[in-house]
Amino acid sequence: MLKIDMHTHILPKKLPNFAEKFGYGDFIFLVHMQDGSANMMQGGRFFRNIKANCWDADLRIQDYAAFDTQVQVVCTIPVMFSYWAKPQDCLELSKFLNDDIADLVHRYPKQYIGLGTIPMQDTELAIQELERCKAIGLKGIQIGSNINDKNLSDPEFFPIFEACQELGMAVLVHPWNMMGMEHMRKYWLPWLVGMPAETSRAICSMIFGGVFERLPNLRVNFAHSGGSFLPTLGRITHGYNCRPDLVAIHNEKPPQDYLGQFWVDCITHDPKLLQYVLDMQGSKRVTLGSDYPFPLGDLEIGAFINEMNLPPDVVEDIFCNATLEWLDLKKEAFL
Amino acid sequence: MLKIDMHTHILPKKLPNFAEKFGYGDFIFLVHMQDGSANMMQGGRFFRNIKANCWDADLRIQDYAAFDTQVQVVCTIPVMFSYWAKPQDCLELSKFLNDDIADLVHRYPKQYIGLGTIPMQDTELAIQELERCKAIGLKGIQIGSNINDKNLSDPEFFPIFEACQELGMAVLVHPWNMMGMEHMRKYWLPWLVGMPAETSRAICSMIFGGVFERLPNLRVNFAHSGGSFLPTLGRITHGYNCRPDLVAIHNEKPPQDYLGQFWVDCITHDPKLLQYVLDMQGSKRVTLGSDYPFPLGDLEIGAFINEMNLPPDVVEDIFCNATLEWLDLKKEAFL
Repeated sequence: MLKIDMHTHILPKKLPNFAEKFGYGDFIFLVHMQDGSANMMQGGRFFRNIKANCWDADLRIQDYAAFDTQVQVVCTIPVMFSYWAKPQDCLELSKFLNDDIADLVHRYPKQYIGLGTIPMQDTELAIQELERCKAIGLKGIQIGSNINDKNLSDPEFFPIFEACQELGMAVLVHPWNMMGMEHMRKYWLPWLVGMPAETSRAICSMIFGGVFERLPNLRVNFAHSGGSFLPTLGRITHGYNCRPDLVAIHNEKPPQDYLGQFWVDCITHDPKLLQYVLDMQGSKRVTLGSDYPFPLGDLEIGAFINEMNLPPDVVEDIFCNATLEWLDLKKEAFL
Repeated sequence: MLKIDMHTHILPKKLPNFAEKFGYGDFIFLVHMQDGSANMMQGGRFFRNIKANCWDADLRIQDYAAFDTQVQVVCTIPVMFSYWAKPQDCLELSKFLNDDIADLVHRYPKQYIGLGTIPMQDTELAIQELERCKAIGLKGIQIGSNINDKNLSDPEFFPIFEACQELGMAVLVHPWNMMGMEHMRKYWLPWLVGMPAETSRAICSMIFGGVFERLPNLRVNFAHSGGSFLPTLGRITHGYNCRPDLVAIHNEKPPQDYLGQFWVDCITHDPKLLQYVLDMQGSKRVTLGSDYPFPLGDLEIGAFINEMNLPPDVVEDIFCNATLEWLDLKKEAFL
C-alpha cells in the first residue's frame, strides 16, 4: 500500500548566517558538530540539536523504508518562518528554503513532495513567492497558526488564501509562536498545551472569519489532528449557538458545517482520539502525518494505525488517498 | 435520583464598591437595572450583564427543579478572584464573598453547598482564609488555572494545597486570565480556545510539578471536563516519554498515572467526548457540572447524559456519587 507522510520537516544542510547578512534579528543558523549533528542557534542562544535526518535525503528515505513509507511531504521548521523580519529579508530567506526543497523534489520526484514558506507579514510579497513556489514545483505552502499574533481571520491574509485557491496550492497550518509561552516555560508546556490551542485558534479563526465559507475550494490541512479543535467542538458549537452576537459576526454558518471541508493529520498518539477524529472528519479528511524527524512526532509513521483494526479502505484513505486529494495529486505519480 | 450540580456560580446581590473603597483597581461592581438584571462593571467598563438567577437563591432552586436537580455547589465568578489586588484587599473581598455563600448554605443546607475564594497571591493570607472558610461551613475552594500568570506548580502555592489536604478542603480549578487573550479578542476565542488550554495547563502543572504525587489525598476537580487535557493526553504522554529531560524534571511518574486521582466535571456539550472522558477517568471521577447560570454553560443540567444510554450506576456516579466523594460528604445529608 502506498504510504505518504504529509507532515515532515526538513532544512538545508547549510544555512547562510542571515543575522549577519541582514544586520539584525534572531534568524536561525546551524553550527555543525563533530558527532554529525548540528545545533540550531537562535541569535546567540541554543534552540535545538538536530541530526542528519533533518537534511540528508537518502538517510530519510532509509528511515522511512523501515516503516513501509515511500513518500514524504517536506516543509521547513516553523521557527524558520521569520514573519517578524523585514518582509524583503523574510522573502530572501523563504526563497532560499524553497529553492532547497524544489531541488530535492526534482531529484527525488517519487519520494518527496514539497511545501514552501512565504512572507505572510507582507501580502504582496507573500503572493509573489506563492506564485514562484508553484512555478518551481512545490504543491503548497506551510503557514503558522498566527502571523505575529494576528489571527488567520485578519483581512490582510485573505488575498493570500484567495491566491492559494486560484493557484491550486494546498496549505498546511502548523502551530508556532505559542500563546502563553512566556508564562509556561517549564515542562515543555508551550509544545504540550500551547500548540494544541494554537491549532484550534487557527481553525476557529478561519471558520468564524468566513475564510472557508468564501473559499470553498481552498485545501487546508491542520497539524496534530487539528490540536484541541475537534475534541472541544462541543464547547465551540455551544458558544456559537448561545452567543452569535460574539461568535457569528462574520459568518452565519455553524462551525460543524465545515467538518470535512478541511483536512487534519493523524498525529494524536492515541488510537481512541484518532477514532473520535475519524468519526467527525471521515477518513477522506484524515491524513498520515508524523512530525518527523522530531521526538514529539510519531516516528513509527502511523504504525499505531495498523493496530486499530480499521477497515482496509479507511487505512488506505489515511495512508495516501486523503493526502493525494489534499494536494490534488495522482497516485500513479508515486508508484 | 439525587442530582448535585457541582459547578455553578453565584454573586451577592449587592457588592460594595471596592475600587472606591481601596482607591485603585478594576474590582467588579454591580449596577442594577430597571429590568431586574445587573451590569457587572470592571473599572468603568461593561463586563457582563447578569440576571437575578446569579444571586436569587429561591429562583435558582426553581430553575433547577425543572431539571430534577436538588443541590447546587456554588462558588464565585472567576473574574472576582482579584489575585492582582493587594493581598489584604483581596482578603477583604474574599471574606465578603465567602460570608455571603456561608450565609446561603446555612439557610439552605439541603439545597446549597459552598466553595470559597482565597487570596492565592499571598500564601499566608490564603491559608488563613482557607481555615476560616472551613470554620464557616464551606466545603472547599475554587481557584484559578493560573495565579497572575504563575502556574499551579509554583512552590509558593504548595503550602496552600498542603493545607487543603490537611483540612480536607476540596479544590475546584476554574480557567480564567486566559493565555493569548490579548491577541484573540474576536469570536469569543478566549472562552472557546483559551479556557480549554488553561485547564490543561493547570492539570499539567499539578502533575509535572509533583503536587498530586506529594499530596495523594488532595481532592481536586477541574472545570469543563479538564479542558483540552484528556483529549491531548496522548501528545502530553508522548512528550513525557520522549523528552523526560524537559517534562519529568520534578516528578518521575507518567501523567496517565494520575487519571482517576483527580475529578473533572461533565461539561463537554458532546456525548461522544463525555464517553471518551468516562473511559479515561471512570465514572467515580466525573461529576455533574453546568456552569449555570451563564450561557456557555449546560443550562439543562446534564440532560444530555440521560440520552446517552449509560448504565444507571454510571449515571448515578456522575449525578451525585462522584461529587459526594470529591467533597467528602454523605448522600443522606441531602435526602
